[in-house]
Amino acid sequence: MRGAVLYSPGDVRFEERATPTIIAPTDAIIRISATCVCGSDLWPYRGIQSINQPTPMGHEYCGIVEEIGSAVTTIKPGQFVIGSFFASDNSCPHCRSGYQSSCQHRELVGTAQAPILRVPLADGTLVTTPEVPNDDLIPSLLTASDVLGTGWFAAAAANVKPGATVVIVGDGAVGLLGVLSAAQMGAERIIAMSRHASRQKLAREFGATDIVTERGDEGVARTKELTSGIGADSVLECVGTQESMTQAIRSTRPGGSVGYVGVPHGVELDGEKLFFAHVRLHGGPAPVRRFLPTLIDLVWKRKINPGKVFDLTLPLDQVAEGYRAMDERRAIKALLLP
Amino acid sequence: MRGAVLYSPGDVRFEERATPTIIAPTDAIIRISATCVCGSDLWPYRGIQSINQPTPMGHEYCGIVEEIGSAVTTIKPGQFVIGSFFASDNSCPHCRSGYQSSCQHRELVGTAQAPILRVPLADGTLVTTPEVPNDDLIPSLLTASDVLGTGWFAAAAANVKPGATVVIVGDGAVGLLGVLSAAQMGAERIIAMSRHASRQKLAREFGATDIVTERGDEGVARTKELTSGIGADSVLECVGTQESMTQAIRSTRPGGSVGYVGVPHGVELDGEKLFFAHVRLHGGPAPVRRFLPTLIDLVWKRKINPGKVFDLTLPLDQVAEGYRAMDERRAIKALLLP
Repeated sequence: MRGAVLYSPGDVRFEERATPTIIAPTDAIIRISATCVCGSDLWPYRGIQSINQPTPMGHEYCGIVEEIGSAVTTIKPGQFVIGSFFASDNSCPHCRSGYQSSCQHRELVGTAQAPILRVPLADGTLVTTPEVPNDDLIPSLLTASDVLGTGWFAAAAANVKPGATVVIVGDGAVGLLGVLSAAQMGAERIIAMSRHASRQKLAREFGATDIVTERGDEGVARTKELTSGIGADSVLECVGTQESMTQAIRSTRPGGSVGYVGVPHGVELDGEKLFFAHVRLHGGPAPVRRFLPTLIDLVWKRKINPGKVFDLTLPLDQVAEGYRAMDERRAIKALLLP
Repeated sequence: MRGAVLYSPGDVRFEERATPTIIAPTDAIIRISATCVCGSDLWPYRGIQSINQPTPMGHEYCGIVEEIGSAVTTIKPGQFVIGSFFASDNSCPHCRSGYQSSCQHRELVGTAQAPILRVPLADGTLVTTPEVPNDDLIPSLLTASDVLGTGWFAAAAANVKPGATVVIVGDGAVGLLGVLSAAQMGAERIIAMSRHASRQKLAREFGATDIVTERGDEGVARTKELTSGIGADSVLECVGTQESMTQAIRSTRPGGSVGYVGVPHGVELDGEKLFFAHVRLHGGPAPVRRFLPTLIDLVWKRKINPGKVFDLTLPLDQVAEGYRAMDERRAIKALLLP
């Protein structure tokens, strides 16, 4: 088969790779129905995160089970499944407490920009849909694999409650689905930080009540102004830079919560400032597996339409253009169809 | 009157100071029944926190109301009262959400190592006892002013729940009362980090089930061993150094919580490490006012005896010896009686 491989910053190739096969008895092989490019794929693509060798890419996936290992009991060939970027046994103490992305036996699933994928720990990792979905549902189901699951975790980690005032820092696909998640959790006021017309529009569709275009000090000041000088109850940090993290913390009221899901790059937090900010901080790699049943159900019943974040659809063999379009911010998120 | 003044590291004097009087109509003047030396007083005493001029000291207090300003309505002369180191109006949005130490009108109360004290925002700050207490209750009531309130906040910020496994980093008075607080909140297993026999003994009396004497990497390893490799549900950080904070974070299970109340000195948190640790982090100056009614009630009914942390009692004019004894760790905490 052919799949995506990153050679060096800016150099993604679609080339011959070994077709995955069952290695462990707990594996499953799935035929990908759709995959996509993630904001976090841009870190190595931009050279901010280094790679040592040509690296297969992709960690968002859904598709049809083709084959299962001898120890797999809950998943059958022919079923449509969705999983997270971290395979997890869903039975260790960390999984049982809802932190499957810190599973004691976790394995990164990192070769999903391809037509065939091996998923380890299939029983713990994969969640089935009630039946094989219509094609129009596939983009939204795919989002549950990471980008929606991560936005949802940001909102959960930020303790979004009914009636809350919420700020979302970051207008990438995760931030936009953070808006959707906060709305689903009953937030009353949702302030999205964005200076891009198309992203502002989608933020409004997903439930944003206010848009703030200022950043840094001015962004914080504008947020304070919108919240009567108090700050937000919950702030979702969906970028991962020093500036975004600082802005998130400073936009939060004392006792409020920051949920951070942007993988931090070069972020240092000053202990004393954090202390006097009085905020709650929680984040990390989203335990998507915890949320999959809920998210699949919401999509299945067409209560949410997170697939709208895909504003570019490409055949999988044009994966390089997907990276370019997202890097240049011409696209919010690129859907790839094998 | 005479009160404590810090001139330079190691130089505390008991000398003539102006007797406080009502300045604002919301003030109260109280006659101190007992005050004490705080672990945080040792930061400037040790020169780790600089002072620019001779500085009156002390922020833990309880006593009898002598005089009230014309706008004070809920406190009367003759009543026994306890307040926090941050005066607060108890009515602003931050106070209403339980973060009185971030009150929009907060004022530091920092001259309490003296016989007479002015307390601003008296209605919002001071809490009365049912009647004037017996002398034997005064040490425990005094702890509610800061050291118990701070240990309690550490446990609350660390989300201690019934049945939880809790680690306490720091065997100072705050850490020891963090043990007591965790026990009151129903923790099942309480692991106190301490290598001092007298502090270990008090930790056991307050409810510790295990004592760990190792620190740093070895301390983390021992904690992991005691928790079947999982880590603690809740960790109370009661020191404020890089080492203690790192140890606290690394002792917590994914999804667990660190409550930190040691004022951070030179602490830097690496964003990426914090992200992958998957912990919740919350702390800051304890909103003691939130807890005062509960804590006073527990002391009044003799359900807890936090006054045991005072293992040295001195007349107020020997305040300098109180600092020395705590600095040299000869005393856990020094009670000062005017």
